[in-house]
Amino acid sequence: MYFGVDYYPEHWPEERWETDIKMMKELGINVVRIAEFGWSVIEPKEGQYNFSLYDKVIDLLHQYDIDVILGTPTATPPAWLIEKHPNILQINKQGQRNNFGGRRHYCFNNLNYQRYTHKIVTQMVEHYNDNEAVIGWQIDNEFGHEASDKCYCDDCQKEFQNWLKEKYSTLENLNQTWGTVFWSQSYNSWDQIPTPKETWTAHNPSLLLDFYRFSSDSIVDYQKMQVDIIREKVAEQWITHNLIFTGHTLNLDNLARDLDFVSFDNYPVWGGLAKPVNPETTAFNHDLMYGLKNQPFWIMEELIGAQGWDQIGYLPRPNQAKMWTYQALGHGAEAIIFFRWRACRFGTEQFCHGILDHDGKPKRKYKEIKEIKEELDLAGDDFTNSTRKAKVALYHSYDNMWAWQIQPQSSAFDYREEVEKIYRPFFNKNINVNVISQLSNLEQYEILVLPILFLVNSDWIKEIESFVTNGGKLVLTYRNGVKDENNIVTDKTLPGFFSELAGIEINEYESLQVNQQNSVVFENKEYDTRVWSDLITLTGAKSLAEYNQNFYAGTPAITENKYGQGEVYYIGCSPDDKLLSYLYERILIKTSLNAIETEKGVEIIKKTGEKNNYLIALNHNSQSYKINLSKTYKTIDGKQAKTELQLQPFDGIILKQDI
Amino acid sequence: MYFGVDYYPEHWPEERWETDIKMMKELGINVVRIAEFGWSVIEPKEGQYNFSLYDKVIDLLHQYDIDVILGTPTATPPAWLIEKHPNILQINKQGQRNNFGGRRHYCFNNLNYQRYTHKIVTQMVEHYNDNEAVIGWQIDNEFGHEASDKCYCDDCQKEFQNWLKEKYSTLENLNQTWGTVFWSQSYNSWDQIPTPKETWTAHNPSLLLDFYRFSSDSIVDYQKMQVDIIREKVAEQWITHNLIFTGHTLNLDNLARDLDFVSFDNYPVWGGLAKPVNPETTAFNHDLMYGLKNQPFWIMEELIGAQGWDQIGYLPRPNQAKMWTYQALGHGAEAIIFFRWRACRFGTEQFCHGILDHDGKPKRKYKEIKEIKEELDLAGDDFTNSTRKAKVALYHSYDNMWAWQIQPQSSAFDYREEVEKIYRPFFNKNINVNVISQLSNLEQYEILVLPILFLVNSDWIKEIESFVTNGGKLVLTYRNGVKDENNIVTDKTLPGFFSELAGIEINEYESLQVNQQNSVVFENKEYDTRVWSDLITLTGAKSLAEYNQNFYAGTPAITENKYGQGEVYYIGCSPDDKLLSYLYERILIKTSLNAIETEKGVEIIKKTGEKNNYLIALNHNSQSYKINLSKTYKTIDGKQAKTELQLQPFDGIILKQDI
Amino acid sequence: MYFGVDYYPEHWPEERWETDIKMMKELGINVVRIAEFGWSVIEPKEGQYNFSLYDKVIDLLHQYDIDVILGTPTATPPAWLIEKHPNILQINKQGQRNNFGGRRHYCFNNLNYQRYTHKIVTQMVEHYNDNEAVIGWQIDNEFGHEASDKCYCDDCQKEFQNWLKEKYSTLENLNQTWGTVFWSQSYNSWDQIPTPKETWTAHNPSLLLDFYRFSSDSIVDYQKMQVDIIREKVAEQWITHNLIFTGHTLNLDNLARDLDFVSFDNYPVWGGLAKPVNPETTAFNHDLMYGLKNQPFWIMEELIGAQGWDQIGYLPRPNQAKMWTYQALGHGAEAIIFFRWRACRFGTEQFCHGILDHDGKPKRKYKEIKEIKEELDLAGDDFTNSTRKAKVALYHSYDNMWAWQIQPQSSAFDYREEVEKIYRPFFNKNINVNVISQLSNLEQYEILVLPILFLVNSDWIKEIESFVTNGGKLVLTYRNGVKDENNIVTDKTLPGFFSELAGIEINEYESLQVNQQNSVVFENKEYDTRVWSDLITLTGAKSLAEYNQNFYAGTPAITENKYGQGEVYYIGCSPDDKLLSYLYERILIKTSLNAIETEKGVEIIKKTGEKNNYLIALNHNSQSYKINLSKTYKTIDGKQAKTELQLQPFDGIILKQDI
Repeated sequence: MYFGVDYYPEHWPEERWETDIKMMKELGINVVRIAEFGWSVIEPKEGQYNFSLYDKVIDLLHQYDIDVILGTPTATPPAWLIEKHPNILQINKQGQRNNFGGRRHYCFNNLNYQRYTHKIVTQMVEHYNDNEAVIGWQIDNEFGHEASDKCYCDDCQKEFQNWLKEKYSTLENLNQTWGTVFWSQSYNSWDQIPTPKETWTAHNPSLLLDFYRFSSDSIVDYQKMQVDIIREKVAEQWITHNLIFTGHTLNLDNLARDLDFVSFDNYPVWGGLAKPVNPETTAFNHDLMYGLKNQPFWIMEELIGAQGWDQIGYLPRPNQAKMWTYQALGHGAEAIIFFRWRACRFGTEQFCHGILDHDGKPKRKYKEIKEIKEELDLAGDDFTNSTRKAKVALYHSYDNMWAWQIQPQSSAFDYREEVEKIYRPFFNKNINVNVISQLSNLEQYEILVLPILFLVNSDWIKEIESFVTNGGKLVLTYRNGVKDENNIVTDKTLPGFFSELAGIEINEYESLQVNQQNSVVFENKEYDTRVWSDLITLTGAKSLAEYNQNFYAGTPAITENKYGQGEVYYIGCSPDDKLLSYLYERILIKTSLNAIETEKGVEIIKKTGEKNNYLIALNHNSQSYKINLSKTYKTIDGKQAKTELQLQPFDGIILKQDI
Repeated sequence: MYFGVDYYPEHWPEERWETDIKMMKELGINVVRIAEFGWSVIEPKEGQYNFSLYDKVIDLLHQYDIDVILGTPTATPPAWLIEKHPNILQINKQGQRNNFGGRRHYCFNNLNYQRYTHKIVTQMVEHYNDNEAVIGWQIDNEFGHEASDKCYCDDCQKEFQNWLKEKYSTLENLNQTWGTVFWSQSYNSWDQIPTPKETWTAHNPSLLLDFYRFSSDSIVDYQKMQVDIIREKVAEQWITHNLIFTGHTLNLDNLARDLDFVSFDNYPVWGGLAKPVNPETTAFNHDLMYGLKNQPFWIMEELIGAQGWDQIGYLPRPNQAKMWTYQALGHGAEAIIFFRWRACRFGTEQFCHGILDHDGKPKRKYKEIKEIKEELDLAGDDFTNSTRKAKVALYHSYDNMWAWQIQPQSSAFDYREEVEKIYRPFFNKNINVNVISQLSNLEQYEILVLPILFLVNSDWIKEIESFVTNGGKLVLTYRNGVKDENNIVTDKTLPGFFSELAGIEINEYESLQVNQQNSVVFENKEYDTRVWSDLITLTGAKSLAEYNQNFYAGTPAITENKYGQGEVYYIGCSPDDKLLSYLYERILIKTSLNAIETEKGVEIIKKTGEKNNYLIALNHNSQSYKINLSKTYKTIDGKQAKTELQLQPFDGIILKQDI
Repeated sequence: MYFGVDYYPEHWPEERWETDIKMMKELGINVVRIAEFGWSVIEPKEGQYNFSLYDKVIDLLHQYDIDVILGTPTATPPAWLIEKHPNILQINKQGQRNNFGGRRHYCFNNLNYQRYTHKIVTQMVEHYNDNEAVIGWQIDNEFGHEASDKCYCDDCQKEFQNWLKEKYSTLENLNQTWGTVFWSQSYNSWDQIPTPKETWTAHNPSLLLDFYRFSSDSIVDYQKMQVDIIREKVAEQWITHNLIFTGHTLNLDNLARDLDFVSFDNYPVWGGLAKPVNPETTAFNHDLMYGLKNQPFWIMEELIGAQGWDQIGYLPRPNQAKMWTYQALGHGAEAIIFFRWRACRFGTEQFCHGILDHDGKPKRKYKEIKEIKEELDLAGDDFTNSTRKAKVALYHSYDNMWAWQIQPQSSAFDYREEVEKIYRPFFNKNINVNVISQLSNLEQYEILVLPILFLVNSDWIKEIESFVTNGGKLVLTYRNGVKDENNIVTDKTLPGFFSELAGIEINEYESLQVNQQNSVVFENKEYDTRVWSDLITLTGAKSLAEYNQNFYAGTPAITENKYGQGEVYYIGCSPDDKLLSYLYERILIKTSLNAIETEKGVEIIKKTGEKNNYLIALNHNSQSYKINLSKTYKTIDGKQAKTELQLQPFDGIILKQDI
């Protein structure tokens, strides 16, 4: 298994390198990622290439049997390049050009930047494609981060117009599809079509959605250019990118398509936060990354120390980084690379703490990394290669996310929060979920969840109908089926395509605002709901819960409909966790799935290897717990048998069981 | 009576039109407004006019005896025009040019835009001026909306300088009036005078007030240009504009001057709001609209469904739109047009719900409209033409409002809130108020209220003095009489002109901030006050209430002064509703006015027709109430006699009584 | 003693001047400041100088034996100058040019502005250098105010590059020092170095710190140019500047260097505030001003009335301005000039109230000024010239403040608040503190406090070590010693240089966010801490307080270390006031210093004159107090002996005692 660290040798005197590498070796590190911000190291002046620094480091690493991943350095164009071509810098929504000084400030559609990218990547790959220490490539760094996902420059406007020409062929088609007759916005020349810079009121939502798609495509194409250059010249070396998920305008499904495998930068806490995100948030991220190619992924940056730029924040607790590492492995990671070796003494990331702090001495975090490696060595490849099956599919779509960003409809609405709310009960019950990006091959699942799926494509309906007809359980939520793929509202009575499946009609609805709530009665108890209320008319379904307030008190809020061999559930509101949990129990009882009930924040993952079954027990809390195991497991060293387990604060434990 | 709907035939396939019009007919609709955003429909390319779409629709409407109001489409310049003359787009306070994509992004002083406006309006009026279905014209749409009221482009700067030249004749006069000697801002050339773009600290308040006046005049002149074109060519067709009141830089008194009558767009709730504004807010808006020309007005857009762009929000309750319609009629509307026929499937206003939703089916709202029409038919023209008299005048001035926007003086101050606070007790007591914009013909009133009238004109004082001398009750508040019409502080001891009338001097004052309060004692009870404390010295008046806190505890906060046959009340603080209510009772007892006490949110309006007296009972709450009528009324169908009335949630009931 | 007022004769008709001056005379005023915004009065058109207005006023003042201070008017360039050279206006961080209309909108590095400044100052000084009424000069007004401290124009960029060339000589040195290898930001031409305009993420912290230094130097150099012009031409007239402290990018130590003495504008409350700042805040400001040159300073603007631009706010209570005046004198002011004579009727500062309000009548504030003067006359020069000694030194550095502004590290961190927290217990105990800007001559102190001294210079360590070795008490806080003067993190284990002195090592730390807290146990009681937790390992020190929460509960939070003859205290957290107070008592007991315990908000200052000792008792609260004096004092008129004192709300009392 690859177990590594992100290293910036250019930040340290050459005489320190061997000390560092010996310490890495002591920790069992067998791979390092380097060079992903090193453009000015490699090409200090235009056309003057100098690989000597990285050559020396790679040689030294190779002497110690440590493999190398090379990053292409395009996230940070050097000062000389910006000086020569200032138009490389992006233009924001207010029409202002970005400035040199941070990172990621380049326009993906700038022809000069594409040309210089081509040159630096070509130089690097020609220099390192037959280096035996180099096992693979990372393209650029965290595409889309820091609001760099969208640019409004003239080049982008021109490219957007070309993209639209490609998509719609004729202006008539575009005008018709977008409904530009509204507010007199019909175009009679492609040149007239703007990028959606700031304006009074809001832009046409169909134009906005296409601009989001175009922006994402611009990034995907820019990555593709680099991938193509490298792939043409390498034999065994693979290509990846270190993805993050922050709700930016980047379709990760498309981005992953061109990679050999997906990598993920896992930061459960960052600068300015008082505590880490919820455990289900990291779990969902991992499941999302797995789902991109439906195969194991790498962690390219796994947090080990406190992080931050201007703000620092939460200090990861003893063992917490280990626990997060095991969570990643449990959810499908197959390699772990920690960020970063040592805190840098200068620059914007002075307070991004690594395995070592600024003083370079081995301390608590160093010892923890060593312990992790020792345990993973005990677990061995059978553990790393073990798998987990999911019978629940949750559909996630970037088009849909963007449509919600464009029109949140309620001030209380947060796309990610609402999707996670629907995911959370599965997490709490320790039930595996596949986050899927294609509505196909659904027969492998027993439950299909389509959370807040505003934007639907008529092509899907057959597949979904057949899933239900054959006995699947379909879970729909409020606002499913409202629009088509062009962001146009359906003229069918809601929930549109899903009306017949769900056995309901929605003739009115109400968006609830921040601090506003309704309530529903489910099995004689009252539960809070927020964000939205669909007013449902039953046309075949039965009501499972009714509203308790407002003029629509007593009308259905959640329904169940038998359809073929299956059932369709419609949740016309955003209920609290408890109600969802009880509702899911009602559904699960009709499936082969078994919940494992644990304390909130205690996560149990079961995986299957060739030799052993594995149980990963994670405690995301600062309290201790004793948990009972349904079967007897052995400790990872094989020395003890366990039927119950004591979990210390932030503990992460791997147990095994012969098959 | 005109009972209509706003219709956008261009948003729907031609084959749907007759279905729509038949449904309108079924609802009793007899007028529709069309075309107010249809520039690109009429002139898809420069100079190529095509009226066929609207011709067909108007013919069809005419066949069904439905009259037509045409909007001039200038709120939405087409893409080809912005492409040709990008300088049409406004420049904001930060110096950034607006962008195509929303609406209302044009500069009122741009010569090109004025030229194209002239052409499109001329074309439309020449085409439709003798169309017998067309009864009138609406100019543009909601002038001033969406921060489109102020532009800072070079054209506007030049026009502002010309406007100032016109007003002040000489630079010496301007420098003297504005006090430009302060901070070395004297101008020795008209070209030096800036528009008030963002700067450190704040601009000269006199310059700011003049820039607000200029900005308003720019809109009024732009409307006037359109009015003149139309008026020259039409015989019977009238001209109006659909006004809104949002505190923007637009003097509605001046805007109304050039219109045949005023129209109002009545939205008691809009996107992102959890509940409607207070009932006194809509009541005040109606009274303000009536006061603009002291004559009945139209509702050009009356909300029927939930509204919003990115955000939706509150769903109007069953009967609530009817109740709002009756409130409008009670306060002086003579025609009602509902916004809009059907929710649009595309564009920025996808979530502006109409009588029909996207699915086009008649549902709850459709039935409500039908019921409204049936009741109004029973009520007949005698009801529509009935009138109400007011003995209370409340003066409202845009110059004064702008002066407060320029210098709010307290963080707790909100102009509209403070004016409404003074208006509210009259509303709560169901006493009619005329919102007046001229301090003349005051002899018809018993009470004159000058709320927070910061800016005063010395010409008024005789009129006001004579009103009081002859027995009128004058109500003044804190900060009355502080400045002259040029935003210059008086050198008289406060309240300046009003000092003698009020029998007081104010030698100190304190502005209270958000969350800060004082209290006063009135008739031995304590009440909260906020926003402001005037420290009052009595010079003839008597104290009605004294402060209870701070070093000025025990000194007068509210005073009463006999002057001639009348009385002058000075309220040196912003008291809570209860205290104001008790104070008003003290005043009312000296007049012929009778309060009708009702539960908060229950509104009673009495009107007088030629045949009948009318009582309109409105319940703005979600609870039910039983109210006793002082006399016997008949139901509107004449079938039942009522001495008490059961009000359901959001009920609106019209009763009548023979004269 | 100079007792004066700020006067703007240009705001009032000439016929009023003598009335004003007679009233001043009645108040005992003997100096006025004029002309500091009068550029357009003196030079209404380019090159046309006209001093007649000020000549007349100065003559009139001189007739009444009132001296004059002249302000150079460069804070407000006239309209004709901005019209001719619009590039004088600053460019902000977003790249937008400022606009004419407020004040201070000029770029300090603009060559045209420097040229015109040279001309106007030369003209003024040549005109007034031998005027016997004119005693001195104030340069410009409140440098750095209103975000005018930093400009990002092309001229500034070029000057910044020159400044860096001067400092670093070679690009290699700059690249090395700043660590530009991070994120590929190495410069190979001086022209490439940007000013830190807005960018994604954050700029290099070393570049930022140098840009802050450069910006401050630009102001200091601009002042120096004016100082040099004046000094060359005057004989006895002195030069000062009216400083403020608002955390802006201006090194007041450097600014003071070129002045004859420091002046301070003292506004304990300003527009929009509901109450004055804390008394220790004004006390600290005075001590800071004294420390700039370690000599008495002037108050050039002392608040007397309510202040504000768009917002007003708190009305100073009866006697409160007197109390603030005595506080200033207690902390080292030697002259008091009140702001302003009369509230202006026009312009941005309409609501800056003076001794007179707009109506020009003598009222409460007028009487208070008179009383102050009468008491100060009784106190005489012996009081004005009296001094106070401090045995506590608190080091304050602008470089350090800027480094914290660049990287606050915790959202709960506020530089000024944290420094004041450390200062406050001394204030509460009525112990004098010297705020020092140089770590030299430390032998005069018993206690040296280095609050949150993030940035340290290795040159200091010997001086500090010697201070402790010789018996001094050194107080250090969290984050001391983290960085060098170039904003680079040390590679020593923290607290770096201070590790040996403090007898501790810090191997981990945690930044706490807003609303987050920890607690510590000190002498068996629990106290709250906020902002930061250092995790301390003792290497010689002993623990005085231990954390009570989180995984580091039980580990040291505050330590004490004997070193040589002295002690070093390290406070690894931001504790509440009580704990700090107890800790200080523990330290004070080992010194010769005696606390005077008073109620919170009651301040006692002791000063020593040639003839008398003085005690100044100040009550910053609205309650009354009786306080016991340890010795017998006489009232300032010498008529009564006092062993106890009744303090009325906001009272300020001066007592004396023969030496």
